[in-house]
Amino acid sequence: MKILLAYSLFFVIFHSTIAQSTIEQWDRFELTLKYQSKVNAFTNVNLKATFTNKDTSYTIAGFYDGNDNFIIRFMPQKMGTWNYVTQSNIAALNNKKGTFECIKATGNNHGMVKVSDVYAFKYADGKPYFPLGTTSYAWTHMPNEVQELTLKTLKNSGFNKIRMGVFPKNYDLVKEEPTLFPYELLEVKKDANGKEVKVWDFTKFNPEFFQHLEKRIDNLRDLGIETDLIIFHPYDKGRWRFDEMPMEANLNYIQYLTARLSSFRNIWWSLANEYDYVKSKTDADWLTLTKAVVKNDPYRHLCSIHGSTAKYFDYWRPEFTHVSVQDEAPVMNWGAASIARNIYNKPIIYDEVGYEGNLKQRWGRYSGEEMNHLIWMGIIGGTYVTHGESYMFKDHRDTIFWAKGGEFKGTSWKRVAFLRTILEEINTPLEPADISRDSKIVTNGKGVYLIYFGKEINQQWLFNLPQKNAEFGKPKKGNRYKVEIIDTWEMTTKVVPNTFELSEVNDYRLYDKDLKQVRLPLKPYLALRITEIPN
Amino acid sequence: MKILLAYSLFFVIFHSTIAQSTIEQWDRFELTLKYQSKVNAFTNVNLKATFTNKDTSYTIAGFYDGNDNFIIRFMPQKMGTWNYVTQSNIAALNNKKGTFECIKATGNNHGMVKVSDVYAFKYADGKPYFPLGTTSYAWTHMPNEVQELTLKTLKNSGFNKIRMGVFPKNYDLVKEEPTLFPYELLEVKKDANGKEVKVWDFTKFNPEFFQHLEKRIDNLRDLGIETDLIIFHPYDKGRWRFDEMPMEANLNYIQYLTARLSSFRNIWWSLANEYDYVKSKTDADWLTLTKAVVKNDPYRHLCSIHGSTAKYFDYWRPEFTHVSVQDEAPVMNWGAASIARNIYNKPIIYDEVGYEGNLKQRWGRYSGEEMNHLIWMGIIGGTYVTHGESYMFKDHRDTIFWAKGGEFKGTSWKRVAFLRTILEEINTPLEPADISRDSKIVTNGKGVYLIYFGKEINQQWLFNLPQKNAEFGKPKKGNRYKVEIIDTWEMTTKVVPNTFELSEVNDYRLYDKDLKQVRLPLKPYLALRITEIPN
Repeated sequence: MKILLAYSLFFVIFHSTIAQSTIEQWDRFELTLKYQSKVNAFTNVNLKATFTNKDTSYTIAGFYDGNDNFIIRFMPQKMGTWNYVTQSNIAALNNKKGTFECIKATGNNHGMVKVSDVYAFKYADGKPYFPLGTTSYAWTHMPNEVQELTLKTLKNSGFNKIRMGVFPKNYDLVKEEPTLFPYELLEVKKDANGKEVKVWDFTKFNPEFFQHLEKRIDNLRDLGIETDLIIFHPYDKGRWRFDEMPMEANLNYIQYLTARLSSFRNIWWSLANEYDYVKSKTDADWLTLTKAVVKNDPYRHLCSIHGSTAKYFDYWRPEFTHVSVQDEAPVMNWGAASIARNIYNKPIIYDEVGYEGNLKQRWGRYSGEEMNHLIWMGIIGGTYVTHGESYMFKDHRDTIFWAKGGEFKGTSWKRVAFLRTILEEINTPLEPADISRDSKIVTNGKGVYLIYFGKEINQQWLFNLPQKNAEFGKPKKGNRYKVEIIDTWEMTTKVVPNTFELSEVNDYRLYDKDLKQVRLPLKPYLALRITEIPN
Repeated sequence: MKILLAYSLFFVIFHSTIAQSTIEQWDRFELTLKYQSKVNAFTNVNLKATFTNKDTSYTIAGFYDGNDNFIIRFMPQKMGTWNYVTQSNIAALNNKKGTFECIKATGNNHGMVKVSDVYAFKYADGKPYFPLGTTSYAWTHMPNEVQELTLKTLKNSGFNKIRMGVFPKNYDLVKEEPTLFPYELLEVKKDANGKEVKVWDFTKFNPEFFQHLEKRIDNLRDLGIETDLIIFHPYDKGRWRFDEMPMEANLNYIQYLTARLSSFRNIWWSLANEYDYVKSKTDADWLTLTKAVVKNDPYRHLCSIHGSTAKYFDYWRPEFTHVSVQDEAPVMNWGAASIARNIYNKPIIYDEVGYEGNLKQRWGRYSGEEMNHLIWMGIIGGTYVTHGESYMFKDHRDTIFWAKGGEFKGTSWKRVAFLRTILEEINTPLEPADISRDSKIVTNGKGVYLIYFGKEINQQWLFNLPQKNAEFGKPKKGNRYKVEIIDTWEMTTKVVPNTFELSEVNDYRLYDKDLKQVRLPLKPYLALRITEIPN
């Protein structure tokens, strides 16, 4: 919803007449005020508004969007009547008042994703959210037809999150020059080697750049995809130098970005990708920048930071809602994924564990089987793993999904959609049932277990459950269960015809009273879903 | 060294005449002052002393030791002349002055163990320290002949650390009643069930109890063994109730304990064993108690806290010098031990991963092979694992080493001594060479590598090293190496007759130029030590 409050001689003030419009809870209310600034409107105009609903109020920063447009966006967290009033150092923008009605969300609008049950996530409306994301760092900087293709690809996938950057990427295999830049160009210089160097005015944003980004985030929202937005990254290497702006420019950028985007319900903040490779910033700088994001975000979107391999930032700090780490060892080995979970008591997302692909770099050449396996290894540790794909068939101009989007060329992406159906059927978070002792079983505490055999090939499996059931009530003699064999690779689920009934505890485990076994196909990557049958 | 400053009519003040004695650096200077307090000397007498050596000064708390003895103990960190002067609310104890000479340490006196190189330890004199400890929670509360036997057993072992508690232990299989208690007995009551309950005066310590503990800590020091002293534990279950004293009593106890023991160079503070099982204390309480220990310890001994399985306290807090955690998953699986290391950037000691033994509980029934394997799994992750043994051959009156000491009856303890010789020969900390990618190799950065094969049985091993060498210089083409095959179980080291020479990097690895292999015996638990041959 957009409201335009006019300023000029040619318009009458009409906001009072249209103020009683309605928007859905967690949708975006947008107020546009017109004012012609004679000086830099980005730096010389302060604008905010207070939105009030009974005893709840939010003070929301506005921003300059170019063309004399000053915008304030607001995402109502509560239904009912909201009143607002603006405050500005510019009389024409000050004390503008209005009201709107916030109504119940419909359709796919479930609100923001938040942390739930310590280690998991839920939408604001209570619907569980299982992060099954992919990665495409610079897809919004590719030619428009590639962007449209990326959206089509995502639409036909099962992903519900994507990691992507605000800034363009300059990296091995990613050399595309974007058409839009976040700042106004001051001049193009030649450096000592005669190379052209763009010089930016860090006090003047390019609204068109951000409008485009916003369009893409809304496109993702319409597909039910969360945007894990990377605010800084090191993949610049002197080309545009967005990784080495002065600290004041970094903070202005965060202020501007959060003013524009906090009202987008599908935004997560990722302070950086591979933060420790950004040589111009210290750990203290990162903390300052993180605090700035949190301070400027009235809704407290999910927020984390991501480093190079096995680099763990101070994720225990309250600013970080979850762990978003690059590390493959935790999901390459049994029992390892849960360690970070036990340490942080926050949701753990292994947001980079390598990519399915055919690159010569070791991070970019997993088989589809391996990628799918690692994602399941995360689930069986009570954590989450992000997908990525890096196939290059011709040369660096290929759209390698990892950075550019386009189409998936691999095999694991489909399996992620299958896993999502499994998790959404269970529809409650999964916890390691017998922590540090049995690393192949998770429980939802309500009678559903998932067992994953990984690369093991077994002819049969002796039905048994651990006595320990996370922090939930222990399974009891007489409990009966249904078993389904899940082939995570073939994406099939087959119900075992027998049911199983627990006998008493024997050495920390409960077996079927007749020691019944489950016959398994001689294949790797199998899982079992075990579901209690109500009496 | 003990100095007695007399107070009574029968003694002359003689401290000035003996003040110029000498003690070794990191040894214990002890000043005893006599005063007959008419009221509770533990609570009504304040005593401290300031020790000064040029621009360095320490203010050290004294304590009441019974029999009208007030003691101040000091561990000089610097050589040279130290002057001291006492301060007290009692005139007879106030303004006592003296001086002594601190000389170079000799023999096995290497000073306190401190953190070094982020993840490792060193004695104060620079000698590297590799923690290879064992566990005997209540050995100092057993009959005296068992205590003497424990010391003899430790003397003939390779352990250089022991985890032990201040308080006695009441637990399944550990029912022995101690002869000494830390507090003065007020009365013996009968509870509702007619059971005798000891009621303590928490304002009056029993000096004899602490003198005995100190004797044992000194015995350990003489054996070169660090005392990882557990200040609180949950193994009381209403019997003596030292686990549920009021907070004020807890803090007084810490004050008294640190005043008595901080000057012991082989002390480490372990705030608790299985802290989360102490139901009377919250995480906030533990932090308060930890801060009290740190505040009262002028020398900043190593300090940590230990929880139940997979329970990680806030080890990132600066009070904790290292991680002392109970968790087996990190050393049961490749690549998992390093995760906590990467997260905390502190030394990691897996201080409880289960015990070699024959108990019916799953924590107490590892084979010797398994215990030895887990200790090596720690080393190959750049971390440390503590040994433990829990054999019971008759009944609970057996001296199960884990709680009571006595003799070792297992097989892994000898292998720990062997491992210690390996680590001390290398004599520099070992770091994962290629973190999160190759979990079987550690490097000292100076041309020495350790590779551990665990339970793998290999006929041969193709000589190769990772290109990555932790943060150290990478191995280069032309480097030559000697290889030794270490049988961690048979405790043998065999030099391979060939030498090996690196070729250029091939896909992140460097192989021998002739692709030479190392022939291996078909046995598990083998390791290789690879040592660069200087050109």
